[in-house]
Amino acid sequence: MARFIRKTKQEIGISPREFLFRGKQKIDNVLLSIIDYDAENIEEKSIKTVHDILKYQKKNTVTWLNVDGIHNATILKEIAEDLQLDELILANVMNVDARPSAQEYDNCVFLSIKMLQPNNQTNLFSVENLSIIITKSFLISFQEKKGDIFNPVRERLKKPKKKIRTSGTDYLAFALLDIVIDNYIYIIGILGDKIESLEEKLLHNTHKSVIDEINNYKRELNFLRKNIIPAKELLLSLVKMESDFIEEDNDVHFKELIDNINHAIETSESYREILSDQLIIYHTTVSSKLNDIMKFLTIFSVIFIPLTFIVGVYGTNFDNLPEIHYPYGYYIMWIVMIVMALGMLIYFKKKKWF
Amino acid sequence: MARFIRKTKQEIGISPREFLFRGKQKIDNVLLSIIDYDAENIEEKSIKTVHDILKYQKKNTVTWLNVDGIHNATILKEIAEDLQLDELILANVMNVDARPSAQEYDNCVFLSIKMLQPNNQTNLFSVENLSIIITKSFLISFQEKKGDIFNPVRERLKKPKKKIRTSGTDYLAFALLDIVIDNYIYIIGILGDKIESLEEKLLHNTHKSVIDEINNYKRELNFLRKNIIPAKELLLSLVKMESDFIEEDNDVHFKELIDNINHAIETSESYREILSDQLIIYHTTVSSKLNDIMKFLTIFSVIFIPLTFIVGVYGTNFDNLPEIHYPYGYYIMWIVMIVMALGMLIYFKKKKWF
Amino acid sequence: MARFIRKTKQEIGISPREFLFRGKQKIDNVLLSIIDYDAENIEEKSIKTVHDILKYQKKNTVTWLNVDGIHNATILKEIAEDLQLDELILANVMNVDARPSAQEYDNCVFLSIKMLQPNNQTNLFSVENLSIIITKSFLISFQEKKGDIFNPVRERLKKPKKKIRTSGTDYLAFALLDIVIDNYIYIIGILGDKIESLEEKLLHNTHKSVIDEINNYKRELNFLRKNIIPAKELLLSLVKMESDFIEEDNDVHFKELIDNINHAIETSESYREILSDQLIIYHTTVSSKLNDIMKFLTIFSVIFIPLTFIVGVYGTNFDNLPEIHYPYGYYIMWIVMIVMALGMLIYFKKKKWF
Amino acid sequence: MARFIRKTKQEIGISPREFLFRGKQKIDNVLLSIIDYDAENIEEKSIKTVHDILKYQKKNTVTWLNVDGIHNATILKEIAEDLQLDELILANVMNVDARPSAQEYDNCVFLSIKMLQPNNQTNLFSVENLSIIITKSFLISFQEKKGDIFNPVRERLKKPKKKIRTSGTDYLAFALLDIVIDNYIYIIGILGDKIESLEEKLLHNTHKSVIDEINNYKRELNFLRKNIIPAKELLLSLVKMESDFIEEDNDVHFKELIDNINHAIETSESYREILSDQLIIYHTTVSSKLNDIMKFLTIFSVIFIPLTFIVGVYGTNFDNLPEIHYPYGYYIMWIVMIVMALGMLIYFKKKKWF
Amino acid sequence: MARFIRKTKQEIGISPREFLFRGKQKIDNVLLSIIDYDAENIEEKSIKTVHDILKYQKKNTVTWLNVDGIHNATILKEIAEDLQLDELILANVMNVDARPSAQEYDNCVFLSIKMLQPNNQTNLFSVENLSIIITKSFLISFQEKKGDIFNPVRERLKKPKKKIRTSGTDYLAFALLDIVIDNYIYIIGILGDKIESLEEKLLHNTHKSVIDEINNYKRELNFLRKNIIPAKELLLSLVKMESDFIEEDNDVHFKELIDNINHAIETSESYREILSDQLIIYHTTVSSKLNDIMKFLTIFSVIFIPLTFIVGVYGTNFDNLPEIHYPYGYYIMWIVMIVMALGMLIYFKKKKWF
Repeated sequence: MARFIRKTKQEIGISPREFLFRGKQKIDNVLLSIIDYDAENIEEKSIKTVHDILKYQKKNTVTWLNVDGIHNATILKEIAEDLQLDELILANVMNVDARPSAQEYDNCVFLSIKMLQPNNQTNLFSVENLSIIITKSFLISFQEKKGDIFNPVRERLKKPKKKIRTSGTDYLAFALLDIVIDNYIYIIGILGDKIESLEEKLLHNTHKSVIDEINNYKRELNFLRKNIIPAKELLLSLVKMESDFIEEDNDVHFKELIDNINHAIETSESYREILSDQLIIYHTTVSSKLNDIMKFLTIFSVIFIPLTFIVGVYGTNFDNLPEIHYPYGYYIMWIVMIVMALGMLIYFKKKKWF
Repeated sequence: MARFIRKTKQEIGISPREFLFRGKQKIDNVLLSIIDYDAENIEEKSIKTVHDILKYQKKNTVTWLNVDGIHNATILKEIAEDLQLDELILANVMNVDARPSAQEYDNCVFLSIKMLQPNNQTNLFSVENLSIIITKSFLISFQEKKGDIFNPVRERLKKPKKKIRTSGTDYLAFALLDIVIDNYIYIIGILGDKIESLEEKLLHNTHKSVIDEINNYKRELNFLRKNIIPAKELLLSLVKMESDFIEEDNDVHFKELIDNINHAIETSESYREILSDQLIIYHTTVSSKLNDIMKFLTIFSVIFIPLTFIVGVYGTNFDNLPEIHYPYGYYIMWIVMIVMALGMLIYFKKKKWF
Repeated sequence: MARFIRKTKQEIGISPREFLFRGKQKIDNVLLSIIDYDAENIEEKSIKTVHDILKYQKKNTVTWLNVDGIHNATILKEIAEDLQLDELILANVMNVDARPSAQEYDNCVFLSIKMLQPNNQTNLFSVENLSIIITKSFLISFQEKKGDIFNPVRERLKKPKKKIRTSGTDYLAFALLDIVIDNYIYIIGILGDKIESLEEKLLHNTHKSVIDEINNYKRELNFLRKNIIPAKELLLSLVKMESDFIEEDNDVHFKELIDNINHAIETSESYREILSDQLIIYHTTVSSKLNDIMKFLTIFSVIFIPLTFIVGVYGTNFDNLPEIHYPYGYYIMWIVMIVMALGMLIYFKKKKWF
Repeated sequence: MARFIRKTKQEIGISPREFLFRGKQKIDNVLLSIIDYDAENIEEKSIKTVHDILKYQKKNTVTWLNVDGIHNATILKEIAEDLQLDELILANVMNVDARPSAQEYDNCVFLSIKMLQPNNQTNLFSVENLSIIITKSFLISFQEKKGDIFNPVRERLKKPKKKIRTSGTDYLAFALLDIVIDNYIYIIGILGDKIESLEEKLLHNTHKSVIDEINNYKRELNFLRKNIIPAKELLLSLVKMESDFIEEDNDVHFKELIDNINHAIETSESYREILSDQLIIYHTTVSSKLNDIMKFLTIFSVIFIPLTFIVGVYGTNFDNLPEIHYPYGYYIMWIVMIVMALGMLIYFKKKKWF
Repeated sequence: MARFIRKTKQEIGISPREFLFRGKQKIDNVLLSIIDYDAENIEEKSIKTVHDILKYQKKNTVTWLNVDGIHNATILKEIAEDLQLDELILANVMNVDARPSAQEYDNCVFLSIKMLQPNNQTNLFSVENLSIIITKSFLISFQEKKGDIFNPVRERLKKPKKKIRTSGTDYLAFALLDIVIDNYIYIIGILGDKIESLEEKLLHNTHKSVIDEINNYKRELNFLRKNIIPAKELLLSLVKMESDFIEEDNDVHFKELIDNINHAIETSESYREILSDQLIIYHTTVSSKLNDIMKFLTIFSVIFIPLTFIVGVYGTNFDNLPEIHYPYGYYIMWIVMIVMALGMLIYFKKKKWF
């Protein structure tokens, strides 16, 4: 996925209802899996065709359809048709570049948010678009590829008597978003560890690679923030929404998510300040080291300058140059020069110049 | 077009109802073209005189009048008269320096926005003012010169059964604004490519032209932002407007545009930060290179300073200078000097001074 | 006029109803001139005493009383008495240091705004306080000295059938404020031309006078902004005001003024950024030029240092110094030295040090 | 008074109703003085005991009780008792560290604000806490020590027929606050004069004392702003207050105070920017002067380096060194060296290096 | 406690109702102590089991249960059960990383805030999470470890007739929060003293340890602010809350806390500015000292350069070098050199170069 939103010449002016996949296909076949549950029973299985979900359209259970892979327009259109959703919503699912947002429709709520996961390659973490559609009895989640990020929720669902089993689709949505945001905090922590371990390097090492590392973390942090901050807006508009699908009782949970995301943003802010401070420390260290070297070298030269002048004086060829004829002239010159050099050293030391 | 708003002495105090064209005429003759459509039929043609639009004033079709060229006050006044619009609105069309805004009148909504397009000359993109008047059955768009920017909408209109054919003038306005904003993102992408390609240059090249390039992109980016940011205000006031001509159903589309423009602004913000970072990297590289050179040269000089002093000592003409009479005095001096130079080199190396 | 608000010890604690002129008297005698008009007739004349305005207190015309000179408390008190206005309002007229603001009273609206005009002296523009009182049938404008700034409005008033002739005092107020704000844009343009013309100077000239010029423009721009920004608040509160004297129909005009002033503020913001960039460019150019000189000089010195050492060696007086007895010793020394110098030059060149 | 709020270990957790004086006692005995007036009569006298105010509790006059000295808890408690005020309010009077604020109680309004006055000692101005209690017929002002700051109001009160004599306690409060805020502007003016007079020093003097002065004024300005800005909040909440003791008619006066304080804040902002600019100018001047010196010295050295090399060449003791045997060899050497030196000077001059 | 919020892989996706202690256990056994009081009687004692609180569930007394240690899920669950509180609230108590916030539930108000206390170890202060549950007749406070921070409140409770004895749980909550916030101010004061004492060090000492100290205080201050600022939000939402458990009469006390915390934030802001200024002063001092040294050394060298050249001239071996044969040539040379050196010194002095 591109790090910043892009438009090609061809994409300009396309209808928002067009089913156009703009991302990079990350999975071969679309996988559909269903978890259907109420307080007493739970059923988990993979399904082959979208139409299999139709039989879950009975009132009293919550049905979670997870879709891995969003490049197949046919499947998305079938979902729209079967659940009588506006095609516009499903077309939005395909737009992986979309900015995180929550939208309310007549018969559903649509959420689009970024999932961040640690990554061992050049970039420190990877980004994936997650879309969620919430209706009264269905929650449909769309991921770009197969992943195990939601396994903790699947585990919690298997335990009976938990609140998640007796609540509706909105609580399930909260549980999924909770995982997404916990991952934000987890990733900030990973990045934070690297940033804090830089601190020690800074004291012993002024190699230029340190500054590249700082710049790299700064870039990662900025990118991370750009994905996290709109998620806060999403949650704020979710709380304000007077939708039938979000029970007011669950507002306390969504407010907790807002607190978490605020916490995450503030922590990332702190790391940004730490990086700025590290940059300043790096430059201060480098320039203070350079200054020390230059000062040493200059003082070293300055001590030799009058000495060289003196030997120059006795290298002149004047006919009448009495000192060179003194029997101990040469030794006297050495003594004078050593006294001068020591005098300068003491003077500079006293002035705390080195 | 001037990059910043200007007023000449003569323009001060002119009535807002005065038809005064303040821009640079970019087309010889004003071109009028009409697309009239409803769900079943579509008709596209050029018209010669404004009065030809009168026959489209029947209720059930949408009529899109596109006007290329805005320097002809007579034509604008005829439009005002034929569609019974306030002359003030049409006078505004002529003001190419206007700040993007949306205004609601009794029988129409007036939009003014900047169109940005890539440009191969000194500046990276050109700016054109676009004015749109929306009534119940007419949408009139005013461009400064003939262009093909709206062709994708013309294509979509030709296909029957599309939403655009069954919707009103407000959806058509959305489609046009969508293209304008997609172009913003497209141009930010072009500029972004150039900025990102600078990154590599920075590592190998500290020529002063790099800094000029950075400053140039910074200026372009600022200018771009100055044109994009007010467009967001326009969209926000469009959504808030309780006009009869903007159906509430279409709010979701305008909100999507706001999301897009937010995305564009954030991306431009990111590029601004990247440029700032690049500037800092450039200066750091230049100054660190200079420091390395100066350090090398200083160390080089410092090593020769005591050596020059020593040869000075043996250039003195003292009568009693025993060392010069030693048979191997000269060679001993060389050995002493080489040992001293090596000693200093080792000392500096150990102190990691180079 | 002082550039910043000041209070002397004597001015502290004075009643707001006190008629105290705090500015510098700019005109000898107060000049009163009247323009009285309705859609059909217009009458323009100078009047001697304030009481002459009483006869215009008939309902159906608009009477514009322009007062040049605000140092005469008697005249201001007569106006208050004749038009039954609160003396507080007229006392405010005398306070030339007042911050631009709009206040609503029972029987009038009071506006105070700064007029900026180009100036050929040390400062680039001069500031004058303009106060406007709007009642149902009177508009009274107070200027510090006689000026021709409002002539365009006088011209427009003379033409029959124009909107200004059929509208009330609020439209006249709009026309006057429009001129004031157009002058802001005009002056920003003048300052902007000077700033942009600096750009070229910067490339060829690193004289210290350039930096003084930049600082001077920065100061002017800040002062200008300080006068313009409160005018925006004035307009915003004017639009929000539910006064009987401001017809809602005219809100569109005042909103246009807000757009203009926003535009002016943004343009001034852009120039501020340009000035900041120019400062950075200046410093970069100066320091990069200095670095080039220092690098050249250092390299020049470094090349001579080993050569001076070599000639020092052959200036020693050792009895046994074989090289000086070689027949071509002197020429060999020259060759060695030239080779060394060239070698160093090539090495430095290859390292791209100059 | 400490410049920043402090808490000792002992002060933590004390009840807000505790009468604890936290400041520095600035007066020995508490002085009580009364001015009682209505439109016709005015009586001014000192009183010995608080209970003397009881006889003024008749309806139709305004009674201003001024208390100099706030360290005596007994007196404050007596006031609370006699006027049936909540003890909490009087306890607040003792807290000289309180942040300026306005609070509304059932039978009074309580204001706490900082008074600034010029000072001839180390700091440029001194701070004193002023508390004001407004009831229907009483205004009680509490100062830390005896002062003449409110004399102008006392003078105005003595003149009959003035608005202040016919208005209530709220107008009296306005008059007192007006003096406090006028003093803010007066002090900013004093500081501003000093700052502006620095400007000239900067051009001729790069002594380090200048930078200490700049830092000192910066500190004073920040401290001043910290005391002024909360006063604005106080006034804003006073205007919003729907208290019986603040007549709506007087809102215009309090709004004027808000304008004044905005003006003061903006002026202080301007001086802050001027100080920042002065700092930059100082550093630019210093570093540009240093660069000039270093450039001169370097060029001076560089000119001698090749000359010293040349004389070194002819100081060598080669047997075969033809030039030294030329009859005019010595003079030729001098000519060559002078030409070289001049050539370098011309080259450096042409390159505009000095 | 970690300085920034962290999530381990295992903590992701856990239900908010899970009783999971995420902090570091700071106490072995959970301590429960009760203070039960009304206007007449007060009872203070430690209790063994949670169920002992049940007997205090009579209407007319206030019961303060203080819990030291929050790692024991059983005890928290018992509290939830006995007082019929939602388990979610008690689960929140265990989350020591939570962001300070106030939440309203059906039968209670839940507060979570950070307590800061001075610390003699590496960090200047330690952080502890404080949770408070307020019901009509109970206030339950949860601390991480046993502490004496609330002793002043315990003392105040023991005195009869005090307001705290006749007020409800909300006033008790105010008293506890008051102590927490007073401690913020106390700690800022301690940090402030250290920062202000740095000021003098800066004038005499440019050792690198000073900069480390500045950076350390900056980090502490940032961390402190990060804990204080959300507490302001907590108080603001507490004032806005229309809970039955917070009487409107007590709003004045909570507003006072907001004033205090604003004061604390502003003071910390001031110290941040002081630290920034100190950093700038440090760098200015260091660089100005370095410049002085370099200038001295350069001037010193420059004076010797022409002298060394002159002695070089008379060291040449030209056959025809008349000056060396003058009887006083050597002395004349010394005089010339001394005059030159003095001349240069006077020139540099006159130019104010040292």
